[in-house]
Amino acid sequence: MATKVVVALWVCLMVCGAMGQLTEKRLSYRAQQCRINRLTSSQPTQRIECEGGFIEMWDQNEEQYQCSGIHAMRVIIQPSSLALPNFHPYPRLVYIERGEGLMGVTFPGCPETYHSSRGQHWRGEEEEREFGGQRGDLHQKVHRFRRGDILAIPAGAVHWCYNDGNEEVVAVAINDLNNQANQLDQNFRAFYLAGGLGRGEQPGLRGIRGIQRFHFQNIFSAFDPELMAEAFNVPVDLVRRMQQSEDRSLIVRVERGEMRVLSPDEAGEEEEEYYRRRTRYMGLEVNGLEETICTTRLRHSLDNRREADVFSREGGRLNILNEHKLPILRYLDMSAEKGHMFPNTIYSPHWSMNSHTVVYVTRGEAHMQVVGSSGRTLMDERVREGEMFVIPQYFASTCRAGSNGFEYVAFKTTSSPMKSPVVGYTSVFRAMPVQVLTNSYMISPSEAQKLKFNREHQTFFLSPRGGGSGRRY
Amino acid sequence: MATKVVVALWVCLMVCGAMGQLTEKRLSYRAQQCRINRLTSSQPTQRIECEGGFIEMWDQNEEQYQCSGIHAMRVIIQPSSLALPNFHPYPRLVYIERGEGLMGVTFPGCPETYHSSRGQHWRGEEEEREFGGQRGDLHQKVHRFRRGDILAIPAGAVHWCYNDGNEEVVAVAINDLNNQANQLDQNFRAFYLAGGLGRGEQPGLRGIRGIQRFHFQNIFSAFDPELMAEAFNVPVDLVRRMQQSEDRSLIVRVERGEMRVLSPDEAGEEEEEYYRRRTRYMGLEVNGLEETICTTRLRHSLDNRREADVFSREGGRLNILNEHKLPILRYLDMSAEKGHMFPNTIYSPHWSMNSHTVVYVTRGEAHMQVVGSSGRTLMDERVREGEMFVIPQYFASTCRAGSNGFEYVAFKTTSSPMKSPVVGYTSVFRAMPVQVLTNSYMISPSEAQKLKFNREHQTFFLSPRGGGSGRRY
Amino acid sequence: MATKVVVALWVCLMVCGAMGQLTEKRLSYRAQQCRINRLTSSQPTQRIECEGGFIEMWDQNEEQYQCSGIHAMRVIIQPSSLALPNFHPYPRLVYIERGEGLMGVTFPGCPETYHSSRGQHWRGEEEEREFGGQRGDLHQKVHRFRRGDILAIPAGAVHWCYNDGNEEVVAVAINDLNNQANQLDQNFRAFYLAGGLGRGEQPGLRGIRGIQRFHFQNIFSAFDPELMAEAFNVPVDLVRRMQQSEDRSLIVRVERGEMRVLSPDEAGEEEEEYYRRRTRYMGLEVNGLEETICTTRLRHSLDNRREADVFSREGGRLNILNEHKLPILRYLDMSAEKGHMFPNTIYSPHWSMNSHTVVYVTRGEAHMQVVGSSGRTLMDERVREGEMFVIPQYFASTCRAGSNGFEYVAFKTTSSPMKSPVVGYTSVFRAMPVQVLTNSYMISPSEAQKLKFNREHQTFFLSPRGGGSGRRY
Repeated sequence: MATKVVVALWVCLMVCGAMGQLTEKRLSYRAQQCRINRLTSSQPTQRIECEGGFIEMWDQNEEQYQCSGIHAMRVIIQPSSLALPNFHPYPRLVYIERGEGLMGVTFPGCPETYHSSRGQHWRGEEEEREFGGQRGDLHQKVHRFRRGDILAIPAGAVHWCYNDGNEEVVAVAINDLNNQANQLDQNFRAFYLAGGLGRGEQPGLRGIRGIQRFHFQNIFSAFDPELMAEAFNVPVDLVRRMQQSEDRSLIVRVERGEMRVLSPDEAGEEEEEYYRRRTRYMGLEVNGLEETICTTRLRHSLDNRREADVFSREGGRLNILNEHKLPILRYLDMSAEKGHMFPNTIYSPHWSMNSHTVVYVTRGEAHMQVVGSSGRTLMDERVREGEMFVIPQYFASTCRAGSNGFEYVAFKTTSSPMKSPVVGYTSVFRAMPVQVLTNSYMISPSEAQKLKFNREHQTFFLSPRGGGSGRRY
Repeated sequence: MATKVVVALWVCLMVCGAMGQLTEKRLSYRAQQCRINRLTSSQPTQRIECEGGFIEMWDQNEEQYQCSGIHAMRVIIQPSSLALPNFHPYPRLVYIERGEGLMGVTFPGCPETYHSSRGQHWRGEEEEREFGGQRGDLHQKVHRFRRGDILAIPAGAVHWCYNDGNEEVVAVAINDLNNQANQLDQNFRAFYLAGGLGRGEQPGLRGIRGIQRFHFQNIFSAFDPELMAEAFNVPVDLVRRMQQSEDRSLIVRVERGEMRVLSPDEAGEEEEEYYRRRTRYMGLEVNGLEETICTTRLRHSLDNRREADVFSREGGRLNILNEHKLPILRYLDMSAEKGHMFPNTIYSPHWSMNSHTVVYVTRGEAHMQVVGSSGRTLMDERVREGEMFVIPQYFASTCRAGSNGFEYVAFKTTSSPMKSPVVGYTSVFRAMPVQVLTNSYMISPSEAQKLKFNREHQTFFLSPRGGGSGRRY
Repeated sequence: MATKVVVALWVCLMVCGAMGQLTEKRLSYRAQQCRINRLTSSQPTQRIECEGGFIEMWDQNEEQYQCSGIHAMRVIIQPSSLALPNFHPYPRLVYIERGEGLMGVTFPGCPETYHSSRGQHWRGEEEEREFGGQRGDLHQKVHRFRRGDILAIPAGAVHWCYNDGNEEVVAVAINDLNNQANQLDQNFRAFYLAGGLGRGEQPGLRGIRGIQRFHFQNIFSAFDPELMAEAFNVPVDLVRRMQQSEDRSLIVRVERGEMRVLSPDEAGEEEEEYYRRRTRYMGLEVNGLEETICTTRLRHSLDNRREADVFSREGGRLNILNEHKLPILRYLDMSAEKGHMFPNTIYSPHWSMNSHTVVYVTRGEAHMQVVGSSGRTLMDERVREGEMFVIPQYFASTCRAGSNGFEYVAFKTTSSPMKSPVVGYTSVFRAMPVQVLTNSYMISPSEAQKLKFNREHQTFFLSPRGGGSGRRY
C-alpha cells in the first residue's frame, strides 16, 4: 500500500514537473516558406465520412497553412455519437460552433476523481467499487462543453468526445504543427486508440491522399495480440476485438443509454468546482502539486458577453482568451479571440506582433484585405460563414463587416497575443509625432492630426462613417 | 471615460504580458547549412540610393550570413533627413558609428508621454490640446542617440529616425532572422508605413535583385483607399496621398524647421528621466505594469570608457552590453561588445559558447584567423575599417591588432554572451591539470606550465611580446 | 590585484548568467523528416581505431537518428589511456557501461579549486604554487566516474577522460544535435584541442566517410604558429609540437605514473564535498553565484538500487534521472533512465509525451515492438546487448524481457520525461470511463473493467502471467 502511495506521488511529481516543460523547449522543423502570393478563404477540401459524423480538413499543402504550420479541421459529431479516443503530437484548440457534449482528456498519473455508477449519481453511494459486479467506476474528470466554448487539448493527451445533445456538434479544431511540444516533423498525425480508417479500400473519403490515410490508424492494431493480452492480463480474444475496431472509422454511434452515467449535471459541476477548490486548498498544504495539471481548467466560454474585453456600442465586441484567463494556454502557446462586428463596422488596419492568426467565420460575411511586406494585396475578397483563412504574422489586414454583421473566431500561435493597430486609441499613428507624419506623407499638420485623432476614442472596431447605425447584439 | 481607462489598462496588460512572451517561444525556420569553406571580410554589396541618404546591405546569400541567420545593413542618413517609419519581423541591434539624431520606437498601447507644441517647450504650457488649432501634440518617447550608442529595436515595433545634426549619421544594423520572435521564414523583409521602393524601374539600386525589391514596399499602398479613408475617418484624397508616398524612397529630406519641436534637449532628457523614475515609483503602487515595457531603455552607450568591462593598460579595453546592462536585450536575445585593441595586441584565441558573432570594424585593421571543426583555416586575412564578417558559434578565432590599433563592434545572437578563451586568466588551459597538457601534446611539465601560466594575469586582450609599448587610448 | 578580482567577478557573473541562458533559446535546424518505415536495433557501423582505444559510431544517416537528431557513439578507452580534450556544439550524456576513470570538464571563468602537487596529496601542502619549480598545480575539479554513472557534458565545455583503472572503460555517449544550445546546423562536429585524425591517409577508420573525418581535427593545427606562440607567450617550437599532435589520434596511451597526481581518492572526494558545501554556504553570503555552475554536479549513478523510482518484486526496477535529481540536466534538456527487467516481464505499452527515446541494451535481450501513427509495426525484433535504437516521440512501444532478463539505459531529449502507459496504475485506460471503452471496442462492461483494472496495482513493469516467477536482482 505504501508502495502504491509512493508510486502515485512519484508519478504526480513527474507529471507536474514535466507538464511545465512540455512546451518550453525544442522543436523539430521542416523547411518552411512564407513567400505567399495569394491568401484565399475557403471551405475544407477533404472529408472523412464516419458512422456517427464526419471530419473535414482544410488543405494543409496550401501556402498559408504551410507558412503558419497550422492544420485545421472541422469535426461534425451527430447526436448520440462518440469521437473515439486519440491523441496528437501537438496542442490543439477546439471551438464549439454548435451543439453540446462531453469531453474527456486524460493525463497520465493524475488521480481518478470521478466516481460513477451505472444509472445513478455517485453522491450518497458507497465509495467502494465492486469490480465483479460492475457497480462502480472511477475515471478522470469529464468536461461538459457547449456552443461558444474553447477547449484546450495538450499535446499527447488522449481525448474523446461524446455528443449527448439533440443537435449536431460542430467543432473547429486548430492543430499547431510548429509547436515546441512536437519533436517529430511538421506532418499531420493522429494516433487513435480505437477505431481507425483501416487498411482496405474505404468509401467516404473525399480528397484524402494515400499517405494521409496512414495517420488515422489504430495504434493497437499492429501490436502482437499475445503480448498485449499478457500486458493487459486479459484473454487474447478480447485484444483481437480491440484490434478489429480499426474498421469502425473515427466517430461511432452509441445508444444514449450506453453513455448515460457519464453526464455531470449542473449540480455535479458546481460540486466538482467545490471539490476542485478544496483540492487546491489542500493541495497547498501538501505542496501544491496536485492542482497544477490534474485540476487545471481546459474549457472557457468565448461567447460570454459580460466578459467582453473590447466593447463599443457602435462597433461590436471582442472576447480575448489568453494565458491569463485560461492558464493551460501558457503550455499550449496558443490563444483565441471571438469578434462580433456590427454591420459595416471596420476592423482597424493592424498587424499581429507575435503570432500567426487563423480566422474562421462563424456568421455573416465581411470584405477582407490583407497586405504583406511586398506591398501587394494578398487577399481582397468576401469571406463567408464556414470559411477559414490565415493572416501570417506581421501581415497587415483590415476588414469591413457585411450588412448583416460579421462574427468570427480567430486562433493565434502565441499564448499572449499582441496586435498593433494603425488607427485608434492605441495606434502607431497616435504614438508618432505629428511632424513625422507630415514629412512622411507630405501632408499638412492639420491633416496629420486628423490621421492621429479622428478615431481617437475608438480602438479595433471602428464604427461606420456617420456611426451609430449598427444594430446591437 | 471609464471605458477608455479600462481599454487602456487592458491594452497595457496585454502589451506587458505579451512583451514577456515576444521572444521566448517558437521559431520558424529554413533549412540551414553551416558547412563553411571560407569566411571573408567584406564591404556591403548592395545599395539603395534615397533622397536623404542610402542603405547598403551585405549579401545575405553568403555562407556566413546563411549559417548565422544574420542580415546586415549600413544606413547613411544625411543631415536633415528622415528614415521613414517601418518595422521588421525580427529584432534589430543598431550601432551608431557616426553622427547623432532622434529615434522613435512605438509600442502599441503604451501612453503618449511626450507633450509638445510647435516651437516651444511643453513645460508651462497648458496640458489641454487643441486639435483644430494644431497647437499641441502628444506622442510616445523620442530617443536621442549619439555616436557610439547601441539601439535595440524589438520585432514588429514601428521605428523612424531623424538626423538633426550637422554630419551624416552612419548606422550599422544587424537583423537576427533566426530569432524566436520571427514566425515567418528566414527571408529578409521590411514593412514600410510610408515611402517605399515603388513598382516602377528605379535608378539608384545596386545589386538589388528583383525579389528583394518587394520587401521595401509601403504596406498602405495596396489597401483600398475608400476602406482606409473610412477607417481613418479622413477624406479619400488624403489616403491617396499617403499611398503615393510609395515613390519617395526610404529616406527623405526634411527641412530642419519642420522637425524642430521633436528634439528633447538635455534638460528635457533629465526631466524625462525624472518622469520615468516617478512613473516607476508610482507604477509600483499601481502594480508595476507601466514600467516594464513602456518606459524601458532602448539605448546604451558602448563607448563609455569608464564602463569598460575589461581594461588593460597594455592591451586595450572591452565594453560588453548584455541583458544585465540593458534589460530589453533579454527579449531580443541579442547583445553586443565594443573592443579597443592597442597596436599589436592579440585577442586570446577563443570560441563563443552560445552565439554567433558578427564583427564590424570601426577603425584600424587587424590580422584575423578563424578555424572551424574541420581544422582548416577558414579566415586568414587583414580586416579593415568598414568591413564585416561572421564568426560562427564554437569556431575558434584570434587576431592581432595592426600597427595603428583595432576597434570593432561585435553583435551576438544571445543576450548573455559567454566566450571560452584558450589563453589567460580564465582559459581552458589554466583549468586543466598540467598532466593532461603534457600527455596531450607530449611536452614537458615545465612547458605545460608555460602554456598555463605565461599569460596568467591577462585575459582576452594580450599585450604584444615585450609588452607595454602600445599607445594609450 | 583589485583588477584581477574585478575581472574574475565579472567573468563569473557572465558565466553564471550565461549558463542559465545556454539552452533556453534559439536553435538552428536542418529540414527533418520522421516518416519512418522501419526501426532497427543495431551495433555501431563506424569505427575509429586510436592508440589507446577506439570510437564507434552509429550511422547518423539512418531514419531513426535523423528524425530524433541524435548522434550516438561508444567510446572504449583502454587502461592508462587518455581521451584527448575536445568539445561539441551540443550537450552530451555519457553512460559508463564498464570501467572507471577520471573526467575533467572545464568552465571558462570558474575558479581552479583543485590544488595538486606531483606525487603527493595537496592536503597539508602549502597553498603557494611555485611555477618555476613546478611543484604545484591548480586546476578545476576532476570527476571520478564508475560503472553505472551518467555524466552530463554541457555544449561547448572542454572535457577529457582518463582510464586509471585495470579494465577497459566503455562509455556510451548520446549527442543531442537538435538541442537549443546548438546554433550551427545539425551535422555532427567535434572540436579537438589536441590530437586529431590528421589529414593523411589513415588506417583504422571503418565506415568513416570523407566529410566526417574533417570533424575530428585539432583546431590549433590551422592557426599561425607565430601568432599562437605570441598569444601563449611561449616559443614557436612549443606551438609547433602542439600542432603536430594532430596525428596522435583521439585517444592516447599514457603511463600511469604520468597521471598519478590527479586522482582524488575517496577521502578527497568527501573532502571536496565538504568544500563544496562550505563554498555553497559562503556563496550564499556573497550572493550565491559561485555555486550555480562552477560547483554543479555533473555525475550521478544510475545503478543505485536504493534509489530506484519504480520497484516491483515481480517486475524489476527503474531508475530515472531527471532535472530534479541532477539539476544540470535542466540546461542540457536531456535525461536518462536505467531499467532492470526480470525474465519475461512486460513493459507496459506506452508512449513518451515530450521526448524521443534512445535505448541502449546493456544486458540480456528482449522482444521489442514499436508502432507509429501509421498503425504499422515499425519494429518487431529481438534486441540484444550492445545494440541501440530510437523510439520517436509519441510512438507506442512495448517489450517482453527475454528468459535471462533485460537491462537497458534510455536517453531522452527532455529534462523532465513523461510517459503515458496504456496498462496499469497510471494508465490512460484507467483514466477513461468504462462506457468509453465498451463503446470504442464494442465490448461488455465487464471486459472493459478487466482492461482497466486487471493490472491495477502495477505500473510500467508488468509481471509475466502467473507472476512471481522472476528472479530477484
